Amino acid sequence: MKIEIITIGDELLSGDIIDTNASYLSESLWSEGLEVAYHTSVRDDAVTMKEALLVASRRAQLVVVSGGLGPTADDFTLEVAAKTFKRPLITDENYVSYLKNLFRKWGRELSENNRKQALVPKGSKTFQNRVGTAPGVGLKFRQTQFYFLPGVPKELKQIFSDFVLPEILLQRKRGEVFEFKLLRCFGSAEADLDSALKDLYVNRLDIAGVRVGFRAHFPETLIKLSAWSAKAQSARKNIAEAERVIRERIGKYVYGEGDATLEGVVGDLLVKKEKTVSVAESCTGGLIAHRLTNIPGSSRYFKNGVVVYSNEGKMAILGVSRDIIEKHGAVSGPCAIEMAQGIRRISKTDFGIAVTGIAGPAGGTHEKPVGTVHIALADSKGSHEMKFIFPHGREWFKLLASSVALEKLRRALIAT
Amino acid sequence: MKIEIITIGDELLSGDIIDTNASYLSESLWSEGLEVAYHTSVRDDAVTMKEALLVASRRAQLVVVSGGLGPTADDFTLEVAAKTFKRPLITDENYVSYLKNLFRKWGRELSENNRKQALVPKGSKTFQNRVGTAPGVGLKFRQTQFYFLPGVPKELKQIFSDFVLPEILLQRKRGEVFEFKLLRCFGSAEADLDSALKDLYVNRLDIAGVRVGFRAHFPETLIKLSAWSAKAQSARKNIAEAERVIRERIGKYVYGEGDATLEGVVGDLLVKKEKTVSVAESCTGGLIAHRLTNIPGSSRYFKNGVVVYSNEGKMAILGVSRDIIEKHGAVSGPCAIEMAQGIRRISKTDFGIAVTGIAGPAGGTHEKPVGTVHIALADSKGSHEMKFIFPHGREWFKLLASSVALEKLRRALIAT
Repeated sequence: MKIEIITIGDELLSGDIIDTNASYLSESLWSEGLEVAYHTSVRDDAVTMKEALLVASRRAQLVVVSGGLGPTADDFTLEVAAKTFKRPLITDENYVSYLKNLFRKWGRELSENNRKQALVPKGSKTFQNRVGTAPGVGLKFRQTQFYFLPGVPKELKQIFSDFVLPEILLQRKRGEVFEFKLLRCFGSAEADLDSALKDLYVNRLDIAGVRVGFRAHFPETLIKLSAWSAKAQSARKNIAEAERVIRERIGKYVYGEGDATLEGVVGDLLVKKEKTVSVAESCTGGLIAHRLTNIPGSSRYFKNGVVVYSNEGKMAILGVSRDIIEKHGAVSGPCAIEMAQGIRRISKTDFGIAVTGIAGPAGGTHEKPVGTVHIALADSKGSHEMKFIFPHGREWFKLLASSVALEKLRRALIAT
Repeated sequence: MKIEIITIGDELLSGDIIDTNASYLSESLWSEGLEVAYHTSVRDDAVTMKEALLVASRRAQLVVVSGGLGPTADDFTLEVAAKTFKRPLITDENYVSYLKNLFRKWGRELSENNRKQALVPKGSKTFQNRVGTAPGVGLKFRQTQFYFLPGVPKELKQIFSDFVLPEILLQRKRGEVFEFKLLRCFGSAEADLDSALKDLYVNRLDIAGVRVGFRAHFPETLIKLSAWSAKAQSARKNIAEAERVIRERIGKYVYGEGDATLEGVVGDLLVKKEKTVSVAESCTGGLIAHRLTNIPGSSRYFKNGVVVYSNEGKMAILGVSRDIIEKHGAVSGPCAIEMAQGIRRISKTDFGIAVTGIAGPAGGTHEKPVGTVHIALADSKGSHEMKFIFPHGREWFKLLASSVALEKLRRALIAT
């Protein structure tokens, strides 16, 4: 079955916004083992839209269209669809009733503009929108099943996941089951992970009948395991077996699964082990604190963070000794250690982590080039620091250094 | 002239990565007044690619294709193009010489795989890749001009901006000039900005012959001014006039132009006025410090940041009095003011800014619901705080609160 996604909207073709609907639909279909062959974006223009619908009807058997179902004059996707497929537009009375009810609940009258949203090509099936007012619309034209969805991401997601995807899956032949799992790795490059597994592969990329795919997602590497099988149970068993042999080789780099984030995994470990943390940052400029506090409930374990760009700040707030700064400089292992110990002492936390370095573009020397960074961790047993050079540009430098610090904390928590 | 962009790659259709090439190309063309009519993404599959090239050759006069020009076996875009357009593949000897030189400079021999990259459909024109090894390729098929570019974003951008875009612009008729300008606004919603300008519009959206477009880009609103004219000078003059009347109405919300960011504008003002700043954050968790330190050279004006999640931290590090916390709570105007004064005093900076609030999802009360936030600014003249309620979810809450704090600093700097 060839699948096409069509997204409609001027803003998609001016580079103004990123087409998150297309990637949501692609990913949802992919997670069910359905591969999208084509994705087309077109402007809010009737001629172009008609052309795109016709092309899709010829080359695809399933087409998901998003956008242009709103109540205003520049929303005319269904009008174009009606003309393209030579069907009259008729009012779906059931949907009108649904809308009337909805507006009554909101304490408002159904407006003419919104009533227009129940106008669909003859032969359509409508799906209820529980977030907004535009219906989802299903329509078959020759051999091709079309689904029309609103462009507002929240509305599209609700209608697609509640109604459209289940309907698509019903049509799938019995005995075809797709399962997948995502392993998230940090601390080893894609090529190195691949090499470590190389001798396990059968037929280029298969382990235990499971397809293994890599995806670099700076600064992480994702490993996608996917399997088709006659039975869900055996697909899951195969994936579990592939995961087992992969983890045997490179398990220490796998920090999480699925939607996990490094800061979320660290947060879970802190809760589980009943530990607390505080952070002293120089070159990462608050990013570690920002990431840790993105996690709801982080106030249970995150106590304080400081961002000390100045030597005075390092001394006054963290108690770093003038001696250390004069002898080794602010970007040095001893300074990182005193920062980690200082923030831990002030905050009375189990762990103190600290980062000091040169994010660039200026500030480097021959001895300490741009990208130099010292990352330290202090706990009740003592403290430890490591030096790295990350010549990746300011933004990536900050991201990578913050991830290394979080990973250091993760490993310390596991060892606790 | 109808323009189509085709991006090729399995990863684009599995939702794994965002198609930044398509938005880069769209935006570059749009800034020259060239509107893209279609964007198509297809898998790394010869049949699908051929179909997409044929469809594009029928409906577009200019087609930019990206991806599949690399040195490995799964890069075969040019082979497919040769078959589709019925041209033999031939070696571009000039490009081979260019590659040989390049590899000599790298101290390496030109490999067979890389030599393959000089194999192009007969009648092609090649463009030098100064970042990688795959050439850009221009090829006319019937009435349609095709350009093939590598999928690696850095390589695509270099070849497109150095060679392809100038060639496209050469074909543009004389006397057609397009100019545009982007105004970045914060602190007023799209609908309110639109209302404030409403009576100025001629023909729905034109002011002084200039098209005015709005784009919400949370938490900002962008205003795009664009004009076509026979002469560049008059297009620019019209835009300047439209900008003048717009700024007369809503100028205080316009914080910058083009690629500006709030943190960058604030940084420029701090440098210009020779002022320094420090930040005390609670609910924004380090995001303000992170944003300020994203700007290269921010160590000139950014001194210290602290992230104090705990009451103890607020007292121990910032010197907030126990009395204030017991009487008003940590999420209160008086606490925000003491935090701002505290960080300013410790850091000896001109400005101290502070944020304290409830990001959620938990922690709200009837009196202080989730989303409540107090934002304070302290300087030599005194201090001032404001209360807001941002019920936007944790991530947007942090982003919006950090922007309000930066905007507060921007206005204070302007008034200095």
